[in-house]
Amino acid sequence: MSGDAHKEVHNKPFIIVGPIVHSEEITKLKVFDGGLIAAVNGKIVAVEETPKNLARIQKKYSVTDGCVYHLDKGQFLMPGLIDTHIHAPQYPNAGLGYDMQLLDWLKTYTFPLEKKYSDLSFAAKVYEAIVKRTLANGTTTAVYFATIHVDSTILLAKIVTHQGQRAFIGKVNMNYKTPEGYGETTKESYQKTEDFIKQIQNMKNNLILPIITPRFALSCDMELMKKLGELASRYNVHIQTHISENQGEVAAVRGLYRDCKNYADVYDKAKLLTDKTVLAHGVYLHDEELELLAARGSSVSHCPNSNTSLKSGLCDVRRLLNAGIKVGLGTDVSGGYSPSILDAIRNTLDVSIHISYGKGSNYAPLTYPEAFYLATLGGARAVALDDTIGNFKVGKDFDALIVNMKNLGPIDILGEYDTEALVQKFLYTGDDRNISKVYVAGRQVK
Amino acid sequence: MSGDAHKEVHNKPFIIVGPIVHSEEITKLKVFDGGLIAAVNGKIVAVEETPKNLARIQKKYSVTDGCVYHLDKGQFLMPGLIDTHIHAPQYPNAGLGYDMQLLDWLKTYTFPLEKKYSDLSFAAKVYEAIVKRTLANGTTTAVYFATIHVDSTILLAKIVTHQGQRAFIGKVNMNYKTPEGYGETTKESYQKTEDFIKQIQNMKNNLILPIITPRFALSCDMELMKKLGELASRYNVHIQTHISENQGEVAAVRGLYRDCKNYADVYDKAKLLTDKTVLAHGVYLHDEELELLAARGSSVSHCPNSNTSLKSGLCDVRRLLNAGIKVGLGTDVSGGYSPSILDAIRNTLDVSIHISYGKGSNYAPLTYPEAFYLATLGGARAVALDDTIGNFKVGKDFDALIVNMKNLGPIDILGEYDTEALVQKFLYTGDDRNISKVYVAGRQVK
Ligand SMILES: [Zn+2]
Ligand SMILES: [Zn+2]
Repeated sequence: MSGDAHKEVHNKPFIIVGPIVHSEEITKLKVFDGGLIAAVNGKIVAVEETPKNLARIQKKYSVTDGCVYHLDKGQFLMPGLIDTHIHAPQYPNAGLGYDMQLLDWLKTYTFPLEKKYSDLSFAAKVYEAIVKRTLANGTTTAVYFATIHVDSTILLAKIVTHQGQRAFIGKVNMNYKTPEGYGETTKESYQKTEDFIKQIQNMKNNLILPIITPRFALSCDMELMKKLGELASRYNVHIQTHISENQGEVAAVRGLYRDCKNYADVYDKAKLLTDKTVLAHGVYLHDEELELLAARGSSVSHCPNSNTSLKSGLCDVRRLLNAGIKVGLGTDVSGGYSPSILDAIRNTLDVSIHISYGKGSNYAPLTYPEAFYLATLGGARAVALDDTIGNFKVGKDFDALIVNMKNLGPIDILGEYDTEALVQKFLYTGDDRNISKVYVAGRQVK
Repeated sequence: MSGDAHKEVHNKPFIIVGPIVHSEEITKLKVFDGGLIAAVNGKIVAVEETPKNLARIQKKYSVTDGCVYHLDKGQFLMPGLIDTHIHAPQYPNAGLGYDMQLLDWLKTYTFPLEKKYSDLSFAAKVYEAIVKRTLANGTTTAVYFATIHVDSTILLAKIVTHQGQRAFIGKVNMNYKTPEGYGETTKESYQKTEDFIKQIQNMKNNLILPIITPRFALSCDMELMKKLGELASRYNVHIQTHISENQGEVAAVRGLYRDCKNYADVYDKAKLLTDKTVLAHGVYLHDEELELLAARGSSVSHCPNSNTSLKSGLCDVRRLLNAGIKVGLGTDVSGGYSPSILDAIRNTLDVSIHISYGKGSNYAPLTYPEAFYLATLGGARAVALDDTIGNFKVGKDFDALIVNMKNLGPIDILGEYDTEALVQKFLYTGDDRNISKVYVAGRQVK
């Protein structure tokens, strides 16, 4: 199935029969060695733990024999991966510039690159590449930071639409101490954002949502942030920003907003902490900030590759979860060098294990089922789309990956493994070559 | 060049012209944007920082025009990667079993698998796969643990010979508290080892060396270890074992060898610490052990993926280097899940950065040029082969990779990058798809 077959698959009901894995809760990884899922118009209409009702379900939803797909040995079906934090324009810098930490890195490597996205042909080249690459890596939903430029950010939305990914698209806001040639006035910033929201909503693609994107509290002043908080409320849209990533940044924010109790309070004063807000990093949040985020229902996007590559610090996800905060995973390209959520899963486990060394035996490092949850259902909750995506439930959209561990890949599959072992091998050793097919709302996009 | 072309390339002198990168010292990563290397009979005869003497060198070594290869844009030449610690028989378990720590993991996952290598057809299947996979990942030299079985370990040596890798092959010794069906008597163990050394030496492949391989101080008693120390001295061969990997293991060794000062002293008493000894892990070595290893000239194989996956601990490589110990990198498959030294490079950087958080500003985490050194020249020094491999010097063997960052790979190359940026992108984001060609002693083996 490829090329023109896409639309057929999208429109015709289909059933996939075989091993299925998904999360029901963080502690509950469900593995069916042989189950089935039926989808009609991109929505899941049946999820069964065995194939025994196949004939009945096929008849009920008028699925033709040609649209019943039986998975081969070594394959399994899982929910699509959710990248809750990625900077599309920074993709050309992936793997570069890790000799610096956040604030210098932004000035030296990031801003000069982001400035270039006034050029639509440059933007088209990068955005086509990053959307293709994240889809190839199984990212069915991406939460994108773009740049301050409306036109190229709309172009990103069009490219995402064309390639069939589900995404949040954010035009970045920056009005404070902006670098030469890469900034906006306060008025420009919120007016363009409102215009941007309208343009996205007029695209009438329900897979694409606008997200209000103040870069962070050192790039926006309180006046602008308050205006953006109002916009978010008026249009009932999502919000994303960065918080408490790096110690130098945290100190600078504390110095700048002396009448705020802490970093989180800065955003709260601007009404930017809602139950549709995603905050990247949260490495150095204090307990009272955790309470505030939990109370507001705002989530944290955990970006372990970035936190290590930029030497920001170790984020204790267990502590965030224990505080009742929703957590998803993010690649944070190019603070992180990898566009793959599989890499984020591995780095999440590594960081959690390293944190655990100092904690005594009562502290449990994250397990691979927990990391799987964070990359799927946890991500869906973090972006407040868990009514639509994140796992396989009747009524949700069919966002899924067919994983094939027998593909030519980074590792050989030697012998017979049960589904749970295949899942472990995929999470630890797999890469894009092991992701055979990617579906978003029932449409095959890889 | 592939298939039958191999032998031609091996026998005919050739020159590669283009960007070259290698280490001269740990702090000195040399990058020539356009240089050349000439090889005759697998040995390097010229290394130049510019191509200006190409015609003269071509004439001097009678290199035909068809054997002068110009690298394309996006390509560079670098030394082959050296894996100083890998368990070939454990490859089927890569990615599995990380719910346990070392001693339970050995009993539950590892020993039952290693026992199977009395079966030569099983061994052939796994050993063909792991040698192919490590070569694909650019490992030109591998230091292999096999199992206690002589026949299948000889088979590994034959497979390595056939595929053209450079390797140390170790028949494992285990005579103490061995699991049911997977152990040897003391006499069997050292007699078989002597027989094994002779068989390997009789193969007359100078790319393959035997290495004496007591598993570790909890699997061998002092009597056996002393016999193996004698064998190593009599045959002047290398030695490998594990040391100080896990806190439970360290405590058990201390309990078992009460008349030894520490873990390293156990091996020293058996005369197993020589300047041709490679010790895997060394996470919990005390200062006096570091002094002993430095005095003996024994090296440490740093295996960060394994140390994290098995929750063994954080190994402080900077401290080992400061103590004057030779350090190389190891994958430790399947304690580590990845057969790629690129993964070891990334995990080395991650672990070093995480260690640095607790250390204050005087502590410098390892940099990518240092990790590059550890994976190449550092590894060569660790296995006492730095007169032959590790970097590009006249008189050394031509063990090299042609890296192509424009290949289909895990990341897109967007725009023009200088050689140093390409090297960074390869180290952080590359995989086997970016390794176009692999040479061992001048023979193209991928
Ligand atoms: Zn970010
Ligand atoms: Zn080992």
